[in-house]
Amino acid sequence: MRIDDMILISVDDHIVEPPDVFEHHLPAKYRDIAPRVERMPDGTDRWKFLDFEIPNVGLNAVTGRPRDEYGMDPTSFDELRPGTYDVQQRLLDMSANGVLGSLNFPSLPGFAGRLFAAVPDKDAALALCRAYNDWHIDEWCGAAPERFIPLAIPPIWDPEALAAEVRRVAAKGCHAITFPENPVPLGLPSLHSDHWDPFWTACNDEGTIVNMHIGSSSKLVITAPDAPVDVMIALQPMAIVQAAADLLFSPVFRRFPDVTVALSEGGIGWVPYFLERVDHTFDTHHAWTLADFGGRRPSEVFLERVVLCFIEDDFGARHAREIGTDRICIETDYPHSDAIWPDAPERLAAGFAPTDLTDAEIDAMTHENAMRLFRFDPFTVRAREQCTVGALRAEAAGHDVSIVAKGRRSERTGPMTLANFAPTA
Amino acid sequence: MRIDDMILISVDDHIVEPPDVFEHHLPAKYRDIAPRVERMPDGTDRWKFLDFEIPNVGLNAVTGRPRDEYGMDPTSFDELRPGTYDVQQRLLDMSANGVLGSLNFPSLPGFAGRLFAAVPDKDAALALCRAYNDWHIDEWCGAAPERFIPLAIPPIWDPEALAAEVRRVAAKGCHAITFPENPVPLGLPSLHSDHWDPFWTACNDEGTIVNMHIGSSSKLVITAPDAPVDVMIALQPMAIVQAAADLLFSPVFRRFPDVTVALSEGGIGWVPYFLERVDHTFDTHHAWTLADFGGRRPSEVFLERVVLCFIEDDFGARHAREIGTDRICIETDYPHSDAIWPDAPERLAAGFAPTDLTDAEIDAMTHENAMRLFRFDPFTVRAREQCTVGALRAEAAGHDVSIVAKGRRSERTGPMTLANFAPTA
Repeated sequence: MRIDDMILISVDDHIVEPPDVFEHHLPAKYRDIAPRVERMPDGTDRWKFLDFEIPNVGLNAVTGRPRDEYGMDPTSFDELRPGTYDVQQRLLDMSANGVLGSLNFPSLPGFAGRLFAAVPDKDAALALCRAYNDWHIDEWCGAAPERFIPLAIPPIWDPEALAAEVRRVAAKGCHAITFPENPVPLGLPSLHSDHWDPFWTACNDEGTIVNMHIGSSSKLVITAPDAPVDVMIALQPMAIVQAAADLLFSPVFRRFPDVTVALSEGGIGWVPYFLERVDHTFDTHHAWTLADFGGRRPSEVFLERVVLCFIEDDFGARHAREIGTDRICIETDYPHSDAIWPDAPERLAAGFAPTDLTDAEIDAMTHENAMRLFRFDPFTVRAREQCTVGALRAEAAGHDVSIVAKGRRSERTGPMTLANFAPTA
Repeated sequence: MRIDDMILISVDDHIVEPPDVFEHHLPAKYRDIAPRVERMPDGTDRWKFLDFEIPNVGLNAVTGRPRDEYGMDPTSFDELRPGTYDVQQRLLDMSANGVLGSLNFPSLPGFAGRLFAAVPDKDAALALCRAYNDWHIDEWCGAAPERFIPLAIPPIWDPEALAAEVRRVAAKGCHAITFPENPVPLGLPSLHSDHWDPFWTACNDEGTIVNMHIGSSSKLVITAPDAPVDVMIALQPMAIVQAAADLLFSPVFRRFPDVTVALSEGGIGWVPYFLERVDHTFDTHHAWTLADFGGRRPSEVFLERVVLCFIEDDFGARHAREIGTDRICIETDYPHSDAIWPDAPERLAAGFAPTDLTDAEIDAMTHENAMRLFRFDPFTVRAREQCTVGALRAEAAGHDVSIVAKGRRSERTGPMTLANFAPTA
């Protein structure tokens, strides 16, 4: 397949929220508690909310900067690439990267909306969550509905409110929601309890896909307090296997036959090993554990109900057919440190090059699966030939994608450890 | 390769300690504190030590029983297959399984000898550790030195004593020692500190291979208190990736050029994905994390210094050449629930069958790597033609390997959860 002919829909990118998120969708009586941006004496911008001060951490918005400036320093909006928080600039950055469509995860509220759970008044918490979702759906995605797949965040503290929010946003055309890869580290009941039944019922009814992003339990993979940060960076995606097994052996898929779960940023190269392992576990142990997959094997159920996603994973690409090219979607992870930008088409093509994947299989993974699984149809608005890498890049001709140094805020004297790293999701 | 012509050396099996472990090697003044076996009113046997009562948990010794009797029930010695604790019976069980040689991990003291750390008098703790190692080397392995690779346990509480024990047992011909996959969950300094320098120095000098067994941090992979036990069983081996990354980005390999580490029971199918991920992490982030592999890439260092081990891993077997057939050893895991017994040759051969691995590559993984990396040479005692699957099985002709039901102690009413499961290692 020619690079210019590819069509790319990324099911994992990220918004750095602009300061006006809560301006137009929050009832007036809750205005005072809404998070707001303040400029700090050190020149960085922070969100203030309740007793929290929340910086925009560097690694979460490094696109467009040189690699030696990556890090965990707090930043100001001035230092960020405007495409991180400005939707019109984002569209240009997407086009320059040949990306037609994008699903955007939140930053400020955490992947699973846990920030708002801290508000003691749960009516106010729900109002904040709904305002966020309305801003996301109506303003961010609404700026170009043929370019964005809307993704709601859950009022995670109340399963009934959560179910109602699934239904409310579905009525607005949003059929994707985030959910923690494991609720337990957030102090919530597990996937094995019936606590979440109203949520799963709503997703089952509305055809809403559940997106479990790596790190969405606010739990980083930290082997030791003095481990270099590289250990966490290397391990965090693969830790999604824990969510995969937890979900697979939970009652969710058995009880809710139309629920689909995407393992966002989870990669795919571990999947064949994992599937062999879960089948081996079942074969060896179900006689005493009483695990029950309705006469089927765990691997079959997994491949039917789970959506797998990857940014760069050449080993996984070589095994995509074995995993199932109808269950795999691509991601660009803009503007995080693992992002492929502005050369996503070239890097994806390099991953596919050593394989014998057909154009049809590549089309499935680059956009058709995302359209089907996320109920997204850009071609009704944009003719297909306007959606290709070549067409989009031509539209964005002249848009500046050069790497710009901004300098570092902190000095490095040796290997970076995790000691001073605070999770942001 | 014909099954009868294979030669099998397993670098991961387990001893259920017999009651007389501490009888002949412990100084008289410490006899009173030694662990001892007591028959309980419920008919099970337990080790008593300090304030601990330690059962022989079912899953750790289920070989020879039907799968519906697997479980976490405590057992008595009468219910165990004698080969679990009686070395002459073990040799017959090995021969019947076509297994020439075996490296045996401990049960009672924990993989990393942490049990003895609980003794307040550290002279006594060290005496117990040394007595255990002397029993293991002189009695268990001494019963047939051409059949067993001796494996010491570490006095984990004191790096100097640990280094001295490495040197002491090396002088007795033991060049393998266990070590926790991560010392941090045991309340000990990490691999990133210089705390362990005396230990690494001793291993480096003595050519002693360090064996990090899955679960050796006494930390099970528990996603939720109400998760079915299947989740932990499926995930525990793959959790070794955390040790793999922690070790790789630690100073150990850089500072101790002759140290080799085996990831026991870790499997191999995850390795190609993992190596791509650590190289990607290095390429993307070393400019700011300052990770340093001396001009090489992490994957190169890993494949040069780490030994990979698998029981059954057909996907891994298909990628063995890509990983490196000179770094992979096989395991039978006798008598644990994942054990391949008495049909290890057939199950290993079935894994190799769909591959184009040569006889030389299979010989490397089934025994030659183990002989080189663990400094073990059975052929000086037994002629090579007496060491094959066919020859060993002929020797054990008539040895009973039938599956024997003993009944269950506990009833099952639904899926087994982890709530009542206590780690034993």
